[in-house]
Amino acid sequence: MRTGAEMHALVERLYPLCRSITGDGVRATLDIIGEHIPLARHEVPTGTQVFDWTVPPEWNIRDAYVADADGKRVIDFAESNLHVVGYSVPVAATMTLRELRPHLHTLPDRPSWVPYRTSYYAPAWGFCLTQETLDALPEGSYDVRIDSTLADGHLSYGEHVVPGQVDDEVIVSCHVCHPSLANDNLAGIAVAVSLAQALAAGKPWYTYRFLFMPGTIGAITWLARNQHRIERVKHGVVLACAGDRGDLTYKRSRRGDAEIDRVLEHVLAGRPHRIAEFSPYGYDERQFCSPGFDLGVGSLTRTPYAGYPEYHTSADNPDFVSPAAMADTLAVLREACAILDRNRRYTNLSPFGEPQLGKRGLYDSLGGRSDAKQAQMAMLWVLNLADGDHDLLDVTCRSGLEFDAVSAAATALRDAGLVKE
Amino acid sequence: MRTGAEMHALVERLYPLCRSITGDGVRATLDIIGEHIPLARHEVPTGTQVFDWTVPPEWNIRDAYVADADGKRVIDFAESNLHVVGYSVPVAATMTLRELRPHLHTLPDRPSWVPYRTSYYAPAWGFCLTQETLDALPEGSYDVRIDSTLADGHLSYGEHVVPGQVDDEVIVSCHVCHPSLANDNLAGIAVAVSLAQALAAGKPWYTYRFLFMPGTIGAITWLARNQHRIERVKHGVVLACAGDRGDLTYKRSRRGDAEIDRVLEHVLAGRPHRIAEFSPYGYDERQFCSPGFDLGVGSLTRTPYAGYPEYHTSADNPDFVSPAAMADTLAVLREACAILDRNRRYTNLSPFGEPQLGKRGLYDSLGGRSDAKQAQMAMLWVLNLADGDHDLLDVTCRSGLEFDAVSAAATALRDAGLVKE
Amino acid sequence: MRTGAEMHALVERLYPLCRSITGDGVRATLDIIGEHIPLARHEVPTGTQVFDWTVPPEWNIRDAYVADADGKRVIDFAESNLHVVGYSVPVAATMTLRELRPHLHTLPDRPSWVPYRTSYYAPAWGFCLTQETLDALPEGSYDVRIDSTLADGHLSYGEHVVPGQVDDEVIVSCHVCHPSLANDNLAGIAVAVSLAQALAAGKPWYTYRFLFMPGTIGAITWLARNQHRIERVKHGVVLACAGDRGDLTYKRSRRGDAEIDRVLEHVLAGRPHRIAEFSPYGYDERQFCSPGFDLGVGSLTRTPYAGYPEYHTSADNPDFVSPAAMADTLAVLREACAILDRNRRYTNLSPFGEPQLGKRGLYDSLGGRSDAKQAQMAMLWVLNLADGDHDLLDVTCRSGLEFDAVSAAATALRDAGLVKE
Repeated sequence: MRTGAEMHALVERLYPLCRSITGDGVRATLDIIGEHIPLARHEVPTGTQVFDWTVPPEWNIRDAYVADADGKRVIDFAESNLHVVGYSVPVAATMTLRELRPHLHTLPDRPSWVPYRTSYYAPAWGFCLTQETLDALPEGSYDVRIDSTLADGHLSYGEHVVPGQVDDEVIVSCHVCHPSLANDNLAGIAVAVSLAQALAAGKPWYTYRFLFMPGTIGAITWLARNQHRIERVKHGVVLACAGDRGDLTYKRSRRGDAEIDRVLEHVLAGRPHRIAEFSPYGYDERQFCSPGFDLGVGSLTRTPYAGYPEYHTSADNPDFVSPAAMADTLAVLREACAILDRNRRYTNLSPFGEPQLGKRGLYDSLGGRSDAKQAQMAMLWVLNLADGDHDLLDVTCRSGLEFDAVSAAATALRDAGLVKE
Repeated sequence: MRTGAEMHALVERLYPLCRSITGDGVRATLDIIGEHIPLARHEVPTGTQVFDWTVPPEWNIRDAYVADADGKRVIDFAESNLHVVGYSVPVAATMTLRELRPHLHTLPDRPSWVPYRTSYYAPAWGFCLTQETLDALPEGSYDVRIDSTLADGHLSYGEHVVPGQVDDEVIVSCHVCHPSLANDNLAGIAVAVSLAQALAAGKPWYTYRFLFMPGTIGAITWLARNQHRIERVKHGVVLACAGDRGDLTYKRSRRGDAEIDRVLEHVLAGRPHRIAEFSPYGYDERQFCSPGFDLGVGSLTRTPYAGYPEYHTSADNPDFVSPAAMADTLAVLREACAILDRNRRYTNLSPFGEPQLGKRGLYDSLGGRSDAKQAQMAMLWVLNLADGDHDLLDVTCRSGLEFDAVSAAATALRDAGLVKE
Repeated sequence: MRTGAEMHALVERLYPLCRSITGDGVRATLDIIGEHIPLARHEVPTGTQVFDWTVPPEWNIRDAYVADADGKRVIDFAESNLHVVGYSVPVAATMTLRELRPHLHTLPDRPSWVPYRTSYYAPAWGFCLTQETLDALPEGSYDVRIDSTLADGHLSYGEHVVPGQVDDEVIVSCHVCHPSLANDNLAGIAVAVSLAQALAAGKPWYTYRFLFMPGTIGAITWLARNQHRIERVKHGVVLACAGDRGDLTYKRSRRGDAEIDRVLEHVLAGRPHRIAEFSPYGYDERQFCSPGFDLGVGSLTRTPYAGYPEYHTSADNPDFVSPAAMADTLAVLREACAILDRNRRYTNLSPFGEPQLGKRGLYDSLGGRSDAKQAQMAMLWVLNLADGDHDLLDVTCRSGLEFDAVSAAATALRDAGLVKE
């Protein structure tokens, strides 16, 4: 799965499933992801304590509707899973429109769109519908039915590992708890899958761990179950809203100057983009960057969280995401990984004056010209900053050279025995 | 005393008194301040060594004039105490205008204003007058009389303490050594008195110590007598020129990033204002910020020291200060104290991932909406930055939220057992 | 040698000599420098190991030409030493133009200029000529002759020391390896000689060491032979391109905030100038700033390295450098040395409050005026920042006063026993 079109096809395939933070919709999603990349599946029982939280009952839903006196379904879960408030308790009742109304959610400003609402931790029920539908409902008696279950079960998540040359890890995390919403976050899932496939085609330096988890409770569960090995996580990106037509936005980690921040800012520097400061709201960077962990994890989106009117509405459908935008997001991530994987600190083994590059065939023999070649400049820069304090991205930024040239210079110098990692 | 009008009335009442760095005019000023707020009075004997300085003889003056051959007083201390150079030694002589002239001070560029001059530490005498008066003086013989005394006595200053919940102190310092000058510094005195009254109405966190002292020698005397407890002084403001119609100016402490600097810059950010870097000139911040103390003490003025033509002239009279300006200065100081008093560092007791705010009633149960409430955002920010390194003002600045919202969030989280101070 | 005209005369005298990184041209250059300032001469044998390098064979050349079939010299070393590639091996051959052509170097974009080329470390030979000359050469047979020797000998360099009051050193380094190129670097040599003479006229604080060495291998040789005393080198400037008509450019040391960087930026602040960040290319700052040394050594030029079309061509002749520009470079260096020599850290011996300057005659006795004198302000600033952390240049920058005023204040305070170094 390499092209934007292929990623878009995955978005379309995942779109109809009714996901939530638990339940069979999540499992079906992980099944489909597993068709592309092998997934380690985890099922964490209801009631498990994860830090300050408890894994909630598992929610499943088979049917839900509001029908009028004639039995006609005026709101129907079968048409869109957005119509039911996520985690709604079961309901089977007849009530007047007046009684029903507090349970109905609309977007008055966007009268033809259905909003997305949930109530995970407070028992409640409700329906989401367009303002137009609501306005057209006559007074009268309605049959209200939600055929859902909230019962002991499991929270499900999947992990995919691309093994690297070292055990140090980069995590790429996506939430898989949103139902029929395409940019948030099916596009993120599709780009993550493609990135995993691309990385596996090489032999990356870092071990890359892809996490497909429900938002908040999933990330907290993963962190609670992986505390003992969290020090392996050196860098990470939370990926969401990866397919809309807006410019890319990188939101810095809490640290603000973590290596992942510097890498993504460098990759984005040549494109239209935005850099956002960390805030403890948004996606699961909230958890990775909580003060007890404070990991070097940022978030890459196109238009960020809540920054587009279609956010959390029925208008965030597959048409809202573009194959080209997903391909662009993927390209930036691949470039970032390629830099991250090569971004080391070197020590100059000949630090007193410059070593004689010429006798090693690394320097032009004809002197006097004013056009010092980029490769030679890159070697001089690496040698000069190979003091153990500067990594190759520092050298790149300070020299104004290309990272590739700097990295190639470091390799040539290492091969010549002039620097060591 | 709450209103600008009441503060202005105090300025007018204090205006006629002949103050200097010692003498009965200072005592009379402290008497009047003591009618509004209780003052601890200190009398430090002439000759007392205070660091590198010695408390000088006490100066008092009863009368002074220059009279012409007809006995008509052409310069008369009874009309304005500015007419006599402060600390003038006694004189009783008859002399020609030519002999007198080196002792006469005028402002040629402001021919109708009388300057303010002193000679505290070098025995001298002189008169200040308008250029117009000087120009009109005929040659001839003049009777010159200064009925002053320079004798062993005391340096007087007053302290008023508003007790707080902790012994750590905030000092608010005013100079009380200027004679008939309204903005410099009767307006400062009036605002300080009002601030003390306002703080006493609550129960502040810090202990607030108000210092009414002569400039330089008074501050040095206070510091010399309070060395043993100077570590209690956590913050401070030197208050002067508090009533002219110009914008507020905050001059940073020597440290430049002391907490008081951050607080006042935050409070002023929403208003027209100026921020000035520290310089070792101006008011008694010079002494508090000397390198041996280096206290977190800045200076709040409206138009700063020497920044207005009326400075140190007879034009700095009660008309030059405005009730509204004094009320505005007071309001800023009250807001600054309110922030300073609540600006703590907190530690997150649940730092691994976010704690579950919802189960504590601190978070909306209905999810999916894009308008996260400010109170919730404030709690997330406080939790995220409650690492012992960030104070609430840091949280405020980084989040862009209101300090009040951040402070309320911290209180709610503390009450819920999620953070501790 | 004080005037720009005198410096220009030295440039003209040195211009015809055929210098390289070794050989009699260097020795003749040192002879002439030695007529102005005494030089310690060093001769380092071929084959000496200096860090990663080896001192190369010594190169000398007596004659070289390309002659046509009629015996007419179409390229002649006697006309300009630029015509032969530096370090050319001996050649005596007859060849066609086609065979000769790979050994001919021109500047197609500057058809009337001769380029400067070298091949120090790879055995090679060649001629440099104008494109116009090359274009006019008919096909045919040519007599090619380079009467050079590459043999065991020495690398020569010279040192001149202006003794200071302390053993700590400032180095001023010039390369002396370029043949007939005026701005690069005869102007640098002339300015260095003048600076040495000017410094010797006073008694500087620092010991100033002037280094006249071939580029790269000379600096590396000097560093290798002076490792044991390199910690004495506190500051330094590499001087080159000191005479063109462009603005002065200061290139920062690798540290970027070394004292020499601050001093030169301060001196240049009032003039049109450029500040360049360090890069590991250019002149011998490359060696002094290699990570094993990381000395506080910057580089002063007018138009920097390779920044003018005449660079490394026959157009860099004595007409290209201006007496006024050399005088200006000298003036800036003298001012920088004057600041460097006085830039100390002081400790306030009376740090609690201000000391009483008045009783020491250091402060005006008449108070109240708003025009505090600069001398008094400078004393207050020095006292306030005399905490051992700030040097006088910090005081100058923070106060906005003149360095001379600040330095004079420090001296007055030291003489009064109020501060110590």
